[in-house]
Amino acid sequence: MTFKSTRTVRIEWGDCDPAGIIFYPTYFKIFDNATAMLFERALGMNKNQYLKAYDFAGFPLVDTRAKFTRPTRYGDDVTVESTVSFGKSSFTVEHKILLNGTLCAECTEKRVWVARQPDGSIKATPVPEPVLAKFR
Amino acid sequence: MTFKSTRTVRIEWGDCDPAGIIFYPTYFKIFDNATAMLFERALGMNKNQYLKAYDFAGFPLVDTRAKFTRPTRYGDDVTVESTVSFGKSSFTVEHKILLNGTLCAECTEKRVWVARQPDGSIKATPVPEPVLAKFR
Amino acid sequence: MTFKSTRTVRIEWGDCDPAGIIFYPTYFKIFDNATAMLFERALGMNKNQYLKAYDFAGFPLVDTRAKFTRPTRYGDDVTVESTVSFGKSSFTVEHKILLNGTLCAECTEKRVWVARQPDGSIKATPVPEPVLAKFR
Amino acid sequence: MTFKSTRTVRIEWGDCDPAGIIFYPTYFKIFDNATAMLFERALGMNKNQYLKAYDFAGFPLVDTRAKFTRPTRYGDDVTVESTVSFGKSSFTVEHKILLNGTLCAECTEKRVWVARQPDGSIKATPVPEPVLAKFR
Repeated sequence: MTFKSTRTVRIEWGDCDPAGIIFYPTYFKIFDNATAMLFERALGMNKNQYLKAYDFAGFPLVDTRAKFTRPTRYGDDVTVESTVSFGKSSFTVEHKILLNGTLCAECTEKRVWVARQPDGSIKATPVPEPVLAKFR
Repeated sequence: MTFKSTRTVRIEWGDCDPAGIIFYPTYFKIFDNATAMLFERALGMNKNQYLKAYDFAGFPLVDTRAKFTRPTRYGDDVTVESTVSFGKSSFTVEHKILLNGTLCAECTEKRVWVARQPDGSIKATPVPEPVLAKFR
Repeated sequence: MTFKSTRTVRIEWGDCDPAGIIFYPTYFKIFDNATAMLFERALGMNKNQYLKAYDFAGFPLVDTRAKFTRPTRYGDDVTVESTVSFGKSSFTVEHKILLNGTLCAECTEKRVWVARQPDGSIKATPVPEPVLAKFR
Repeated sequence: MTFKSTRTVRIEWGDCDPAGIIFYPTYFKIFDNATAMLFERALGMNKNQYLKAYDFAGFPLVDTRAKFTRPTRYGDDVTVESTVSFGKSSFTVEHKILLNGTLCAECTEKRVWVARQPDGSIKATPVPEPVLAKFR
């Protein structure tokens, strides 16, 4: 089961470094937000709302791998394509950053669905069926 | 002579702090980008393009004052209203952040129009007439 | 009653923009952290600890004014001098950024001491006497 | 040939998100800066200086992989251990983030040594022998 979301993001002046290109940690902010927006579209709620609606504590990132092939610059409007695939208590999101159709960066992130335990700690828990249903 | 630009900005998860509200330095990124977008709209070019087109070295901020009256949270889509007024070699931008019509933050920034000197330093210089014309 | 704290901060590559100088919103991160460190020094606890120890919800910024007179660059080790003055439920912090003794930026921030109310909202409340005592 | 550098970094309030833990893109800022500091220590110059001294255009990241095993929080003073291994025109840096001796995050980044070409583009070029000598 996969679900895809595409959006456009502007690379801003403050996202770039003295080399005039994007400071790469900015890409991870873009990827993180792309995952949040993908859930927002599928669930029909923003992150503030869906964290409450499904009574979970988030989906922390446990593993991420990214490749950067071409730099982007301030003023660039890049396309972010994000595709999610679900496991039982985890899911994988693949992001691609394209500029005018050319791949500039790609990332694979693995996240775990966690719930708050009575003692305040968090624990991996199966992604709820109503959530999975929204992605079908 | 004033020129006004309005846009919508999403407050993201990573823009917020452990108190669950926006980490205020994020507002200054929003304000900085709002000024860039205001020039982009008036000049019909993005920042990457207009820095070259008008052969100047930017418009560094020299003075800023901001008031924060109500917090905003991730998932909020805020409205940013920006108004610019020109002096000779400087200009003032006033930004307002509104959520559902309620004022949350406001900022007044003073910036100087600078050109690169032969020795590599920058120096305040009059805002070019063709730029001013675009804002009329 | 005033209390002063001085520290050194490295301007990093990622703090700077395509003009090669510090991206000014970074200064507000430096100022925000300088205020946290000032309290840490006076109270003998880090922020994570003192928020719990004094059972309050933080000291949100309500007003800030900054002037930027000289740019700083990556690799610069700047000195941050911070001085706090207390009112009843609020306090003012003045920050100065110096590079080799030369003033580069200065900021005055006003913050309010707030406590969490039973309904979850926050409300200005007097700075506790034990906190004030630590700053004397 | 490997070279190791260890430093302590404070996790700041603004580095953390509404879950109260570090916002993971912050780790990449820490990793990026750790690589810069590792070169600074080996070369005896800061980044601003060594980019000029060795007449190169930087060492852009082309591939990075990170695993996050335990969260860190504001107020935490983490240890960053960074080890570099050189290839011909590239090098690999491994970073580990530890809190009180416990591994919290680790990252492997591959970077390419690039020089500016006459047409303004950048191109991979062998790491200069004088640079390699400093790491021995």
